[in-house]
Amino acid sequence: MEYIQDITVSQYNFIFNAFSFGFATMLAATLFLWLQRSQVAEGYKTAVTISGLVTFIAAYHYLQIFLSWEAAFDVTNGQISLTGKEFNVAYRYVDWLLTVPLLLVELILVMKLSKSETANKAWTLGIAAALMIILGYPGEIAEDSGTRALWGALSMIPFLYIVFQLFVGLNESISRQPDDVKGLIVLARNLTVAAWFFYPIVYFAPFLGFEGSDATVIVEVGYTIADIVAKAVFGVLIYTIAVRKSQAEKGIL
Amino acid sequence: MEYIQDITVSQYNFIFNAFSFGFATMLAATLFLWLQRSQVAEGYKTAVTISGLVTFIAAYHYLQIFLSWEAAFDVTNGQISLTGKEFNVAYRYVDWLLTVPLLLVELILVMKLSKSETANKAWTLGIAAALMIILGYPGEIAEDSGTRALWGALSMIPFLYIVFQLFVGLNESISRQPDDVKGLIVLARNLTVAAWFFYPIVYFAPFLGFEGSDATVIVEVGYTIADIVAKAVFGVLIYTIAVRKSQAEKGIL
Repeated sequence: MEYIQDITVSQYNFIFNAFSFGFATMLAATLFLWLQRSQVAEGYKTAVTISGLVTFIAAYHYLQIFLSWEAAFDVTNGQISLTGKEFNVAYRYVDWLLTVPLLLVELILVMKLSKSETANKAWTLGIAAALMIILGYPGEIAEDSGTRALWGALSMIPFLYIVFQLFVGLNESISRQPDDVKGLIVLARNLTVAAWFFYPIVYFAPFLGFEGSDATVIVEVGYTIADIVAKAVFGVLIYTIAVRKSQAEKGIL
Repeated sequence: MEYIQDITVSQYNFIFNAFSFGFATMLAATLFLWLQRSQVAEGYKTAVTISGLVTFIAAYHYLQIFLSWEAAFDVTNGQISLTGKEFNVAYRYVDWLLTVPLLLVELILVMKLSKSETANKAWTLGIAAALMIILGYPGEIAEDSGTRALWGALSMIPFLYIVFQLFVGLNESISRQPDDVKGLIVLARNLTVAAWFFYPIVYFAPFLGFEGSDATVIVEVGYTIADIVAKAVFGVLIYTIAVRKSQAEKGIL
């Protein structure tokens, strides 16, 4: 959906600054997680490594998105015009294809389930997540609303499967978690689902009465906020759970 | 083989995004492997270091390939044209010359064979791998199909020797591996061979009825997928084997 023809300078700047904010936040989260990885017990280091990996991959893509956005416009003397270079929306999908399965793996790893349960849940949720992203992409680049709606609807099938698995499939495993982290794990699970519901809302924003460059602002800033919550805030939460469980296991708490 | 004259914008974008995906995946795998190196016993740290080295070298080359691809074309207002800068296919071969022998070394090191067996297998397989890459290159840059076929065929001799060695030569060593990792080592071996068979298929794609820019898409995206499987997925598998063997040696399992 190309809605960038009638964009104003202030809309351009707002999105530009959101992308820069996204890059800085993701990189900062990465460095925090990797530096603090030493603070958790052996059994949780992989979860923290992967949390930082997710924000690192996102930081790379936000840098590329930022540069692609900058290259697509020329803003001189308060006048904005298109340079003719395409703003590459595929970066988001490439990012999600890598990071969304890893996000689910983070959550599963920090729960420290049995080996077979970990492998089983990581595979089914990971594949469903990849499928969700792959099905959403043709709609995102489609020129007409009908195609966007169709692929968006198809993408919702694995999306709802994951949400169902997080709520129902993980419930029994969550109930077996130590009492003092149960609340945090439920929070991480709920945060994932809440942040994730943001994506289809943004995806379908063009159908909700937003038009032209207003839709572009909602889509780009909306995805950026959702990404920060789902990756950086979520990653720090996973780290907090890992610290809490490490302390409990050492008998400090 | 220069088949890029008649490329479309969507083909250009698809390859562009595949290269960016390749770069992000290789760099993410590198950081994962080097951060997680602390999780394996002393005897397996070298194998994990080298796994990360392979993906790091690949990340560098994917960045260069990406930049070279971007520089070779101008895409403005949905129109694509050649800038006259050459897309440098040599990066792949330089990469493979360094990484393919190291990949075989990874596999041998994680098996923890005797010192003489390790040295012997690492040298013979490493030299065969280097020979395979060197013989393939003149065909890759050749303008005519006959030359491509000739050097491709010559390159297949060390290729088949390595496959034979992996299947027959390593069998006895694999049978001496601990039971709980035997399956994973067989998987790593089979993954190597499966991913590797992808390369000659891609190499010979121009002979399989694919023409013009379709052949370019198959070659570039095909090599990228094969590289991700053979280096990043393979590296994580080597790491998993190293973790499993470390735990077994510590008596945790």
